[in-house]
Parts: sequence; C-alpha cells; structure tokens
Amino acid sequence: MGSPMYTLYVGTFIQLPRTTAPDEKHELAITRGALWVSAADGKIKGFDWSIATESDLHTLLKRHGWVLEGAGTRTSVRVKLVRAREEHNEFFFPGFIDTHIHAPQYPNTGLFGSATLLDWLQTYTFPMEASFASPASLPSLPPPTAYRAYSQVIARTLSHGTTTASYYATIHVPATNLLASLAHQRGQRALIGRVCMDNPATCPTTLIDESPEDSIQNTEAVIAHIHSLAPASSKETLVKPILTPRFAPSCTPAALSGLAALAKQYKPSLHIQTHIAENVNEIALVRQQFPDCKDYASVYDTAGLLTPRTILAHAVHFSAAERSLVASRGAKVSHCPASNSALGSGICPVRWLRRGGVVVGLGSDVSGGYSVGLLEGVRQACLVSRLVGFLHPVDEEKGADGVVSVEEALYLATRGGAAVVDLPDLIGGFELGMAWDAQLIRLGRFTPAGLWGSAGAEGNVDVFGTESWTEKVHKWVWSGDDRNVRAVWVQGRLVHGADGGDVKGRWGRWTWVWGLVGVGAAWVVVRRVHG
Amino acid sequence: MGSPMYTLYVGTFIQLPRTTAPDEKHELAITRGALWVSAADGKIKGFDWSIATESDLHTLLKRHGWVLEGAGTRTSVRVKLVRAREEHNEFFFPGFIDTHIHAPQYPNTGLFGSATLLDWLQTYTFPMEASFASPASLPSLPPPTAYRAYSQVIARTLSHGTTTASYYATIHVPATNLLASLAHQRGQRALIGRVCMDNPATCPTTLIDESPEDSIQNTEAVIAHIHSLAPASSKETLVKPILTPRFAPSCTPAALSGLAALAKQYKPSLHIQTHIAENVNEIALVRQQFPDCKDYASVYDTAGLLTPRTILAHAVHFSAAERSLVASRGAKVSHCPASNSALGSGICPVRWLRRGGVVVGLGSDVSGGYSVGLLEGVRQACLVSRLVGFLHPVDEEKGADGVVSVEEALYLATRGGAAVVDLPDLIGGFELGMAWDAQLIRLGRFTPAGLWGSAGAEGNVDVFGTESWTEKVHKWVWSGDDRNVRAVWVQGRLVHGADGGDVKGRWGRWTWVWGLVGVGAAWVVVRRVHG
Repeated sequence: MGSPMYTLYVGTFIQLPRTTAPDEKHELAITRGALWVSAADGKIKGFDWSIATESDLHTLLKRHGWVLEGAGTRTSVRVKLVRAREEHNEFFFPGFIDTHIHAPQYPNTGLFGSATLLDWLQTYTFPMEASFASPASLPSLPPPTAYRAYSQVIARTLSHGTTTASYYATIHVPATNLLASLAHQRGQRALIGRVCMDNPATCPTTLIDESPEDSIQNTEAVIAHIHSLAPASSKETLVKPILTPRFAPSCTPAALSGLAALAKQYKPSLHIQTHIAENVNEIALVRQQFPDCKDYASVYDTAGLLTPRTILAHAVHFSAAERSLVASRGAKVSHCPASNSALGSGICPVRWLRRGGVVVGLGSDVSGGYSVGLLEGVRQACLVSRLVGFLHPVDEEKGADGVVSVEEALYLATRGGAAVVDLPDLIGGFELGMAWDAQLIRLGRFTPAGLWGSAGAEGNVDVFGTESWTEKVHKWVWSGDDRNVRAVWVQGRLVHGADGGDVKGRWGRWTWVWGLVGVGAAWVVVRRVHG
Repeated sequence: MGSPMYTLYVGTFIQLPRTTAPDEKHELAITRGALWVSAADGKIKGFDWSIATESDLHTLLKRHGWVLEGAGTRTSVRVKLVRAREEHNEFFFPGFIDTHIHAPQYPNTGLFGSATLLDWLQTYTFPMEASFASPASLPSLPPPTAYRAYSQVIARTLSHGTTTASYYATIHVPATNLLASLAHQRGQRALIGRVCMDNPATCPTTLIDESPEDSIQNTEAVIAHIHSLAPASSKETLVKPILTPRFAPSCTPAALSGLAALAKQYKPSLHIQTHIAENVNEIALVRQQFPDCKDYASVYDTAGLLTPRTILAHAVHFSAAERSLVASRGAKVSHCPASNSALGSGICPVRWLRRGGVVVGLGSDVSGGYSVGLLEGVRQACLVSRLVGFLHPVDEEKGADGVVSVEEALYLATRGGAAVVDLPDLIGGFELGMAWDAQLIRLGRFTPAGLWGSAGAEGNVDVFGTESWTEKVHKWVWSGDDRNVRAVWVQGRLVHGADGGDVKGRWGRWTWVWGLVGVGAAWVVVRRVHG
C-alpha cells in the first residue's frame, strides 16, 4: 500500500483574515470542517467548512474517492486523518513567523541585567557571538558551541509554534552554514543571514570583517552554501539567504552599498535585514557617524538597502519623515516589543506605523528579547500598546488609538510576518494553494489542580467550559505556552510534536502494555510453580 | 518509630537580604549548606552554611545526635532529608507573596479584551462576581462555581510558588467563608477579604451590600468564620481576615468609616485592603464623589483606613502629597504591573514610591492581571520600570532611576510582600525563627530539544553549564514557569509537588520496575517451556 496522497485535517481552524486596511478591526475567522494538504508539495488543495459530523466526513471521503490509510486496495487514493479534538479544546492555527531573531544569542536568553542596547552589545552579545568562530586549527569547521546553540534554538522555536524565522547568525561562515543546514534538516522555513560588520571604530577586534570586500565575499560563500542545500532536481529548500548588515554603526558605507549591489544581482532580489532606530543613544551615534544623512532611515536609503524585501527591526523612534520614506520604499518593520521593554529602548508606535502604510510583523529578538516564543511577542505587543498613549502625550498622532488588540497582535504574528518576509501568498493563513505551515493548539479539558494532580501538565490555560472560541483564543494568548503546542507542520511536514495524538499518551500505553506483560508472565510462573 | 522531628534541607539557598534603605542595590544572597525546620511549628531552627560535602553532612547529623528517617532506634531524634540537587540546578527560594489577587475573577483570567478599568469592571468582573451568590433556595451554601474557582485559584497559585496571598473574595458570605476554609485546608497562608461595596450610584443591583450596616455585619460574619477555623487548642490557622472596601467609588463614607472602626476593635488591628489611584478616569470619579477631599489618598485617610496594616493596590498615579501621606501613615502599596499594563492603567513609579518611604510588594491582581504566577509580576515589574522614564519626561523625579533590577523585583516578591502583609519577621526569607515558606526551584539539566524529545518537560530554561548562580536566577526569572516549581512548603508543610524528588520520576521508576518484572517473568517462562 502506498503512502497517503493527502493529509486531511479535521476540526476547528482559526486564522486572521487578510486585510489591506490597517485601521480595519481585526477579527478571528473561526471555521469548523475539513482541509486537505497534498503530501507531494505540502500545500492546501481544498477545504470544506460544511463538515460537521462523522457522517459528513464519510460523505466527503466517498465523494473524493478517498480511503483512510491502512484501508482500501492497492490503487486506492489514501488520506491520513489528523484531528483537532473539540473535547480537548484543540484547534489549528497558522504557524508563527518570527521576523527577527539572533540564533547565536540563544544561550544568553534572560541574561541582560539592567543594560541598554549599546552596553548590552559589548557586555553580553559580542563575546557570545565571538565564540562562534571556528577553532584556528580547523578553520572550516564550526565550533561545537554553534552546533549546540543552533540545534537548540531551532528546536525551541519550533516547539513554540514558530514555523518561519528570519535569523541573524554571526560573521562566521562555517557556523552560519551550519545554522542553514540545521534549519534545512529540521524542516523549519528560515531566512539565514551572515552578519556583516566591518567598522573598526565600533566593532570589537574579536568580531569584525576584515574589509568591506571580506563582508561581501563571506556573504557570497554563505549564499552559495544555502543554494547548494536544494539541488535543482529536488524540492526547493525552505531555507533562503538574507543579507545582514548588523546596523549602520557597525558597517562602513562601502559594505552597506556593496550589500545593496549584491542583493540586486539576484532575481528576485535577495532579502535584506538590519536594525533601525532602536535606542536613542544608537540614533545619536548614527547621526554622528553619517552627518550627511538626514536621518537613520536615509542612511540605509542612500546605500540602496530600503527595498520591498528589507526587514527593519525595531523602528521605535521613527520620525514622520522616516515612516514615509520606509513606507514609500515598501520596506517592512519587525516589531520586537519584548526586547524593546527589556533593554529599555522604548515603545514602538505600531498603529501609527501601520496607519502610515508601513507593513509590520513581530520579532522575538532573542536575546534582546527574553523568550523564543512568539506568543510572548503577541502578549507584549498588546501590553506596550496600552502604554504608548502615556508615552506620547504631546505627539497625539503617535499616542492616539495605540491599542493593539489580541486579534491585531495575532495578525502581526501570522499575516503580518508573512508580508514582512515577502511570502504573503504562501504562509500566514489557510487559503487554497498556501503551504500547510500550521500548529495544533491544545488548551485541554478542565483538570482540577491538586497536590499530586496533573496541574500544569497541559499548561496554565483553564477552560471552565462556558467560553466562546474567541474567549478560548484570548485565554491561550494570555496564559498559553509551549505546552499547548501539540504539533507543528512546515509545508505539510511534521516538525514538532505528534500528529496522531500526544507523545505522552503513546508512552503511557506502552507502560500499560509492559505492566500487563509483567502481570501475565508472573501469573504463568505462579501457575507453573504451584500448579 | 516516630515521625521526624526536623526536616533538613540541603543544597543551595537563594534569598534577598533585608534592607531598610530602598536605594541600596539589591543583591542575591547565595549560600550552600543545610537548614533545619522543626516539624512541630514549621519554623527555621538553624542552619549551617559550612556544609559542603556528604562527610560534612554526616558530621552535622552526628553533632546534633540526629539519624535519618527510617534508621535509628525508638529513642533517636529523626530528621527527614530534602535536597536541592546541584546536578539538576535546583535551589531553595522563599515562597512568593501575592499582595493583591481577586480569587473569584480567576475564571476570567485572560479575558479583558481592550477594556480599561471602569468598563472592564462592568463587562467582565461584576457579572462574574455576581455568580458567586448562593442560590435563593440554599442561601447559606456557596454555589458550585465558587468551589471550582476557589479550589483552582488556590491550587494554581501554590503551583506557581505563591505561599501567601491576600485575596479579595466577593460580597457573599458563604462563598467567602468557603475560600477561607479551602485556603486553610490546602495550607496556604492567606488574608481573606469579603468585599464591601454599598454605593448604589456605582454598584450594580446584582452585586451590592444593602446598607453600610450590612457591609459591616457580613464582614463580621466572615471574621467569625475565619477565627473558628483555628480553635484555641490547636495550632494557629494561617488564614486571617482582611477588611476589604472594594475602592472609594463603590463605598459610602459610612461604610468606609465603619470598616475603619471595625479594624480598631481588634488587637492588633485588622488588616485592610483596597484599591487606589489605578486609572485616571477612576481618579476623576473619586474627585467628583468626594469633593471635600484633597485627593484619593485623603478619602481613605479621612475615613481612618490608612494604617500600617493597610494594603493599597496600584498607586499608579500618586501625587507627591499622596506619597507623603501614605508613607507617614505606614500604609503599604501592592504594585501590580501586569494588570496596570493589561488594562492600560499606566506605570507605577515604584522606585519613586520607595525613595519616598513607601513599602512596596507585588500583586498579580488576577484577573486584571493575566497570570496567577508572581514570576510574571517580577518580569513585568522589571519591564515597565524600563519604560517609566519615557512616561515622565517632565517629572524627572518620577522618571529618573526608575529601573527595577531582577534582584529588586525578587525582593518585592518576597521581602517586600512580607512587609506589605505585616509579617516581615515571619516570611520572605530564611532567617532563624522564620516560617519555612519556601519553594524548590529546578531549572533542570541541559536537554537537547528534539522532535520526540523531552523539550519543554522541565520548562523553557536552558542552562548551558557556564552560568553563575546569579545568571541561573536571571534565566529562571525570564524563562521560568510553574514547571520549574518542584515543591512548595508553607510553615514547613508540603503544599505542592513532591519533597523527595519529582512525581514523574517516581512513576518513571515504576514503569521500569514493571518492565523489568515483565522481562524477568517472561524469561523464566521461556526457560521453563524450553528448558
């Protein structure tokens, strides 16, 4: 019998509808039914929101001439069935898209003390990143520390439902190539950026490109490696390169414009990512370093780095002119609220950016941000938006209507992120033809917590039974964590958890089997001895 | 053989030293050794920070003439041994003290939409609290919903390491008595407040005391019930009553002053809790309702409610005069940062309050706050403090040096809370004579996360092995959750988790035992059949 041709997902599907009007009130689209994904390419081939009962499901199978795996004849078209079980408060949700995360900083998660951006870089970040250099005796091999950190950050982001991540690596080619290979192997959709930093005035001697040419050449080496991951004959890799000038202060003008030229050599042009207007001292440094440029955004624009495939992280302190410039170039913003609060950078006026036509997604910004989970980004996006009005009592436009609702934050984490990584027609939702990049969320049944009980086994969400689906989603957002992420798929491939139930349940069953074998065998022995 | 006379805790102990200078830099006190707690009264009877090895431990036992439980003769003094295992990155930490939490609102956790205080009360809170009324046919029995919500909130707070909580209940006597009984039974240290609200102009008809006299009488009924929990003959109960006028807008002046008079009838005077200066619209309402009072704090002071045993929640928008008044009366403030951001109330300038002599602790403020875990309060206290400088660009005093470090936030969650509930010599630290109100935190060994692996089983903290204890504590604060809370004790009694290892480990061991029994028995059978 052949393997299934489709996977049929059955249950409740929740997503955020597309919108082009950023002031439109975001609402959850909640549907119940069946959706099927081709095993060949991992894309959504159809759905039917009229499927309500088991009988409806059988009719659907019959109509398509499908049989469930394990049944049928050799020529049957088989489908695999994956359910979001209503009685466990399960639902399918689009995978999260983390538009800004520093993979090598993962071991530093939670370590930032009371630092702000510029001293944090010197104290915590640069020493950690420098440790990703290959040993002098084995210059083409990544160090073991890179393998450990990169494996873990990919596994952890996946376990939190992040199906796509735009990673910064370090300046080191072997370690960056390793990150790309690991993402490829684990099946995470990823943009992988070798960090470029060549300005001796601001970069430490232990972590610097030797010249602008060195920046470009080493970047090209990583691009070549990533392109080699997917031979032309096979399915395309989910991993793509992204040009990554760290931020204006750490780059020479030659490196910035060299990278812009490199981007244009490809069709479509390569992705680009960098930081912008995160911290007031950083902005002062940029002004001092690029006295001819009007503002921070103009530095990148002058170099040719503001493109529709550019991801600008932070944008906490944009002027109105910068907002206009970025919007007109079609460059995108990665909003990193957890990091902006943790490092005391400020609050990004997200609604003001969106009203000005800037496309916004969410970023965890590990380890400026303290959580690999984008659900924490969703929470923080809501929380800081409630405070932004207090921050801008004078600039009414920035402060007014700053509230990001739970729904808008979830939109930013899915649809917004998809637009930021320039894949709005492929990921972020459940439309026909889109990739099945999804997570199965389980809130669980209400379980009374007790001294020896299973309190916390399914996480902190307590569904008491009277909640609507919208309320359940709100409870997930505010109390949920990786325990609620039961399965994660990228382009139809299971990359975390279990797609036929839960792992623990399976092991539990083996425990019972072993127990029964033990009891049965002991009984036989007793019978033999005494019989 | 008798039960152990002492429990001997061995391993790493981390706490925040006492301080009387609020500007002093808080630092972790990290000690390794042994500490013993009397089984009779649950109090710390001694410690020895020189115990480093197993041999030291044996010497200690010998010196005191102690034997471990399960050994010795009938007359031996037995001790039970509980270890914080270094190889699992375990440590003992004082239990958290939640100085402000609304127990009946627990089922609403995470449900607040984009509401602010006054509309949130009407939309979410009052309807939920009204459901705690006894059915008309059984007026002296609490409704089932109260049992479920109150059991759960106690179990959940304990599972997050909260050993003491200052609860608001509702206006209903039977349900409030139930909350007190449940806390007493589960062994949580608690202040239990029947909510008083008698102002027809602001209270809904479904949730209102009939008169100021009604407020007082019903409060007295709850006090009598709580005092009945601990008969004079037995050990004192950990549960105490607290007078709870909801907040100025919901009370008549007669109720406010009546409660103040009631507090004074007891020696020491009863605890009091209420809300203050949380939201700008609320403050406007108070000004309108109490036109003769200079400010919000004066309303309570005029009624006689500002005492050294008064807990004032929020204090987000204090004037300098209010700060002075509250400090001079010795009343305390419960800082609820998660709630203040979630409901868009603003940022409480905590360091400014402390510099002015106000004693501050932390509150979860469920369900204005979205997490029963006070670790979230610790995180939010740090995060919002990084933003408070942006909020008060004019009032430099409030904005300057607003940064609450991880250490200061942990101080607020333990020592600060102890002072707020007026038990600074009993809880919040590990001094001689203090109660053993503690949590055993396990960060776990580094476990590579994998597709089928145990990623997340021990939580999200990844200790890579190079971290100092201070760094491990920071990682706990930023990535930890209830999974890291392995055991919780209140006054020496185990109230959550397991004190001899972990529950899962035990079950895991049984799995192996069953497996081995099965294999062994099967082997015997095979030998018999074929031999």
